[in-house]
Amino acid sequence: MAKELTSRSENYSQWYNDLVIKADLAENSAVRGCMVIKPYGYAIWEKMQAELDRMFKETGHVNAYFPLFIPKSFLSKEANHVEGFAKECAVVTHYRLKNSPDGKGVVVDPEAKLEEELIVRPTSETIIWSTYKNWIQSYRDLPILCNQWANVVRWEMRTRLFLRTAEFLWQEGHTAHATEAEALVEARKMLEVYADFAERFMAMPVLKGIKSANERFAGAIETFCIEALMQDGKALQAGTSHFLGQNFAKAFDVTFVDKNNQQDYVWATSWGVSTRLMGALIMTHSDDNGLVLPPNLAPFQVVIVPIYKNEEQLAAISTKVDEILPKLKAAGISVKFDNNDTKKPGWKFAEYELKGVPVRLALGARDLENGTVEVARRDTLTKETVSIEGIENYIAGLLQEIQNNIFKKAYDYRTSVTREVNSYDEFKVEIEKGGFLLCHWDGTPETEEKIKDDTKATIRCIPIDGDTTPGVCMVTGKPSAQRVVFARAY
Amino acid sequence: MAKELTSRSENYSQWYNDLVIKADLAENSAVRGCMVIKPYGYAIWEKMQAELDRMFKETGHVNAYFPLFIPKSFLSKEANHVEGFAKECAVVTHYRLKNSPDGKGVVVDPEAKLEEELIVRPTSETIIWSTYKNWIQSYRDLPILCNQWANVVRWEMRTRLFLRTAEFLWQEGHTAHATEAEALVEARKMLEVYADFAERFMAMPVLKGIKSANERFAGAIETFCIEALMQDGKALQAGTSHFLGQNFAKAFDVTFVDKNNQQDYVWATSWGVSTRLMGALIMTHSDDNGLVLPPNLAPFQVVIVPIYKNEEQLAAISTKVDEILPKLKAAGISVKFDNNDTKKPGWKFAEYELKGVPVRLALGARDLENGTVEVARRDTLTKETVSIEGIENYIAGLLQEIQNNIFKKAYDYRTSVTREVNSYDEFKVEIEKGGFLLCHWDGTPETEEKIKDDTKATIRCIPIDGDTTPGVCMVTGKPSAQRVVFARAY
Repeated sequence: MAKELTSRSENYSQWYNDLVIKADLAENSAVRGCMVIKPYGYAIWEKMQAELDRMFKETGHVNAYFPLFIPKSFLSKEANHVEGFAKECAVVTHYRLKNSPDGKGVVVDPEAKLEEELIVRPTSETIIWSTYKNWIQSYRDLPILCNQWANVVRWEMRTRLFLRTAEFLWQEGHTAHATEAEALVEARKMLEVYADFAERFMAMPVLKGIKSANERFAGAIETFCIEALMQDGKALQAGTSHFLGQNFAKAFDVTFVDKNNQQDYVWATSWGVSTRLMGALIMTHSDDNGLVLPPNLAPFQVVIVPIYKNEEQLAAISTKVDEILPKLKAAGISVKFDNNDTKKPGWKFAEYELKGVPVRLALGARDLENGTVEVARRDTLTKETVSIEGIENYIAGLLQEIQNNIFKKAYDYRTSVTREVNSYDEFKVEIEKGGFLLCHWDGTPETEEKIKDDTKATIRCIPIDGDTTPGVCMVTGKPSAQRVVFARAY
Repeated sequence: MAKELTSRSENYSQWYNDLVIKADLAENSAVRGCMVIKPYGYAIWEKMQAELDRMFKETGHVNAYFPLFIPKSFLSKEANHVEGFAKECAVVTHYRLKNSPDGKGVVVDPEAKLEEELIVRPTSETIIWSTYKNWIQSYRDLPILCNQWANVVRWEMRTRLFLRTAEFLWQEGHTAHATEAEALVEARKMLEVYADFAERFMAMPVLKGIKSANERFAGAIETFCIEALMQDGKALQAGTSHFLGQNFAKAFDVTFVDKNNQQDYVWATSWGVSTRLMGALIMTHSDDNGLVLPPNLAPFQVVIVPIYKNEEQLAAISTKVDEILPKLKAAGISVKFDNNDTKKPGWKFAEYELKGVPVRLALGARDLENGTVEVARRDTLTKETVSIEGIENYIAGLLQEIQNNIFKKAYDYRTSVTREVNSYDEFKVEIEKGGFLLCHWDGTPETEEKIKDDTKATIRCIPIDGDTTPGVCMVTGKPSAQRVVFARAY
């Protein structure tokens, strides 16, 4: 291999870090906790954005843009919200620098102190609801269905590329409704959109559920979530959709006149996914050889590598490639022809394996004679020689098969490590093995807290499609309405 | 009219402000100088983004993402750059808030002071070149052709929606090259991309030119620009492309080994356009009735308004619309059918006129009988009745005609107010009338400064395609290489 990765069995965490760097996805920057998303990583994020944006628009949403900065006082207006977010944020206190007295640099100009400090948005409920106040008078102004693609900052002490960074990219939907029922429908609808995106595009199976009170978004009445399971048995929260009730409307005094001419507070939702999905994608499918990308999100789905001994052979191969490229593109397949003469085929093979390109075609002189091409699948690492005639149909089918196969592989893995656990002693043993544990819980924050303190496991969600047979809490023996999902999590 | 605008002749500046607000493009936020871009305004910006992004990719560029924050010391590394940008920036000094002693809000936690302050990026040359240092060792690593879509902050004292805001959205390209010649070609190539975009999509004629030293980007060797002329005779810089020489490579010690095994500093360009283009678009085409949008950037190109007296008529019209909608869409035309029953046709006519929808179709009971539809053009405010048979071809042609017509109108206006001026006395009179003045200038910053102090006019550019006949400076009588373009500017 061109670039050696730590193996997953040796050190999963190091494997992840190695892979993010070596596959040119992202790197740490000169600013603590902030990452640089490199072109190859960004190309995957762009694919995610494009699909999500299309899905948001198909469900009636529009994009808008709200300020990066939030006046400090806004954060305090919703009591739970400030508890959740004020403790970890970047604070702008000044608006000017000046030359330093020694002439060797710049210093903050003490005369340019802001009257009120500005917070770099950790999330935008407050600035958006202060704006919505001016947009909403009557039920005729509702619903408002806005989404924003933006950067946000949360001052994390321990950061990891994509999974937890001080600055990250995300989308945040913020909707306003005339009724509680409509807002709840919206929050659930967006949960379905996220689950659909995760499963059909990321090929990542997710559990849909409801967060316990402890894990709820700061300011929400109910938080819906999709939870994925990484290869090391740890869970990863992949997206959340919040029913905010009238909390932010009350905090910012956003009222409307309803059809019966009654004044009421507006109902709200918010929902978001972030560049954290990149981490989830990597840890769902990749292997010791590098990335494995789902065809539906790969920057290019097919790479063609010519195998040649001299310029004449390369020319003949290039002529053949020029014939098949338009056919592949017409079939909706994205292709790169790597005819870079400064790298050997072996180097290229390893490079595209590392970068997770779903299908590699190798084309040599003998293939030209035989009318064949060697097709290698990234997911199974298998190779076969097929006829170059009709290759576009073959590849189109193969890409679909790869997409299905990696989903199935992840799904089967998840199934294999999801099990019911009925006693707390058993739980303490099983949690060390990873995976999702389905357990009865008495519904109290105290018990949840105790389990977390004892085992580092958290309730990932109360599953929406789960078994609803009641039982007794594995810790306290008190009644439990249904099994909930425990795991250690990223 | 539903919403009265100030007329342009009465107060151009007020007309602009009114229009931005009333056409739902943007508004001021609770944060001084920061705007909210509303969904209709953002939809236009998204169209701009999509076209520019496509053009950047077609010219070999890739997207990436670099941190929002820049360590303060980075700004000082390029001497001219810090002079240009350090004076107006948002400074992050702390990373945490805490509950205030009175329990009524939050205050900055004095214990969470950053060792080195972070600047919210006003532009990203410094953070990007500190990153490129790790990406570049050899000529084989070059060129690097990255673009970033991002928000930036410049602490402007006097702000105007889109034209000058503390936070704005933009793209910034940052490229690295092995040779001076290649970097110069890149800077010129992106100037051509910008000009092409402005003229073909925005329908806005631009002058391509070179900035004088006074107007050059802080840190550039040469700044290329496109300059547009607004309806009030003032110029607007619509895009810039900078040849940065080796300035940033030297500041951040970015060297490479060339093909001859010699170490050299890397050559750089940067180039950007911003949401300021929204202001340019508005002020190039719009009129006293509202926005006029070029069909190539309109969120929807056609609106269909039904004219009916009862539900039966509406149903019959809707049936007909259902027939023609797919035909229009198949012809690549974006359409909105406004069957909202709570608004009258007259209200809708005014609303879509205000919002600049290029073509309005009105369809009534008599039209159904006659197989006709009323077609209204936003650019000329003319109406005609045409056959509904083959309407998609008619509209496709009409949209192209509107796109051409508004470009021609803007071009003819610019031509009518562009003239040669040969004496400084004449200049002082003519500059009051607005427009582009082509004048001889001795090439010195001092003369340029004097003209600016006397008349508020600046050199917009030394035109690339201009008349290169030498002459004598209108102020000093010293030799002038060619006429340059003066105007008052936004």
